[in-house]
Amino acid sequence: MLKNFKLQTAEHDVVKLNDEIVEFVKSSGVESGTCTIYTPHTTAGLTITSFWDPRGLEDLQDEIRRIVPTRIDFKHQHDTPQDAAGHIKSSLIGVSMSLIIENGELLLGHSQGIYFLEFDGPRNREFYVKVQSDK
Amino acid sequence: MLKNFKLQTAEHDVVKLNDEIVEFVKSSGVESGTCTIYTPHTTAGLTITSFWDPRGLEDLQDEIRRIVPTRIDFKHQHDTPQDAAGHIKSSLIGVSMSLIIENGELLLGHSQGIYFLEFDGPRNREFYVKVQSDK
Amino acid sequence: MLKNFKLQTAEHDVVKLNDEIVEFVKSSGVESGTCTIYTPHTTAGLTITSFWDPRGLEDLQDEIRRIVPTRIDFKHQHDTPQDAAGHIKSSLIGVSMSLIIENGELLLGHSQGIYFLEFDGPRNREFYVKVQSDK
Repeated sequence: MLKNFKLQTAEHDVVKLNDEIVEFVKSSGVESGTCTIYTPHTTAGLTITSFWDPRGLEDLQDEIRRIVPTRIDFKHQHDTPQDAAGHIKSSLIGVSMSLIIENGELLLGHSQGIYFLEFDGPRNREFYVKVQSDK
Repeated sequence: MLKNFKLQTAEHDVVKLNDEIVEFVKSSGVESGTCTIYTPHTTAGLTITSFWDPRGLEDLQDEIRRIVPTRIDFKHQHDTPQDAAGHIKSSLIGVSMSLIIENGELLLGHSQGIYFLEFDGPRNREFYVKVQSDK
Repeated sequence: MLKNFKLQTAEHDVVKLNDEIVEFVKSSGVESGTCTIYTPHTTAGLTITSFWDPRGLEDLQDEIRRIVPTRIDFKHQHDTPQDAAGHIKSSLIGVSMSLIIENGELLLGHSQGIYFLEFDGPRNREFYVKVQSDK
């Protein structure tokens, strides 16, 4: 079972995906299996971090921007510096992840949020969720 | 087949998980498949690095601390600076990974160690290992 | 279905793997499933980034080198500073990833390249691709 989801991001957006993914896993009827989440973009990423404090999500994008500054002297000059930096951020954070389904539910820690990280934007984006049953 | 493992970490601990995971894969009897490893925490991570030199494991935590300093000026102020930095480290390193099982054994390089990285601690922690057979 | 691929890298090489992986997925005949890519090395990584501009691939290695400098004062001193830094880079970037197969094809964005990142080299390297069908 595979589902494609669309989203519209703001610049440097951090979008929580838990609701859509948890619901899709439940609706799949899979009791035990794995869940693969994937986005086809090169200036975005998928990650898990705490959802309790919205300010913490700002810290995440701030810190990624500090680690990979939006410099004007990247060798890649076909697009904006934000695009060049975004490719590197996407590579560091990753665009796919695998999670575990047990007893019909996605295993998630009590404060784990699954997030779409926008490293450019605003953009029309998409991601895929695939549920694979053990048998 | 899914198994939950508990561990007790020290502050900034680096705990090798190879023995438990390799043994669980063998005991599952799965000849060919995949192995998903996952931890439900937001101030910890799972990674693979060389296990030959214990000093190298100190380098890893030192370097992650250098890349994401434990600053007092994170926007997230509900908990300690170590907690705020830990959320970002966990997001960068990741909390899940998928490996390959072939001929009844986990594919692992001759010096690859699977590690639980504690970015806070000491804490009671857990992780899950799921083995999924090809058929 | 599992296949082992060999490659010969240059120092700090960035090697595109799309062709081999896409062809293997097609040849597997799997209509719907997942694809796990894995490398058994501790001074290399696997990542996805844009393939349009070769200069962008230089930026990626430059930036990773800036984030994890090849310092001479790592605690790990059994090998070269490049080896010590490579272990950390490999841990940050990761050595495995899971992708989605649908309609007999690997889901990949129009500019996503799957890359082997060499953090040492020149070396003889290898990686594995496993295709797992939904049933």
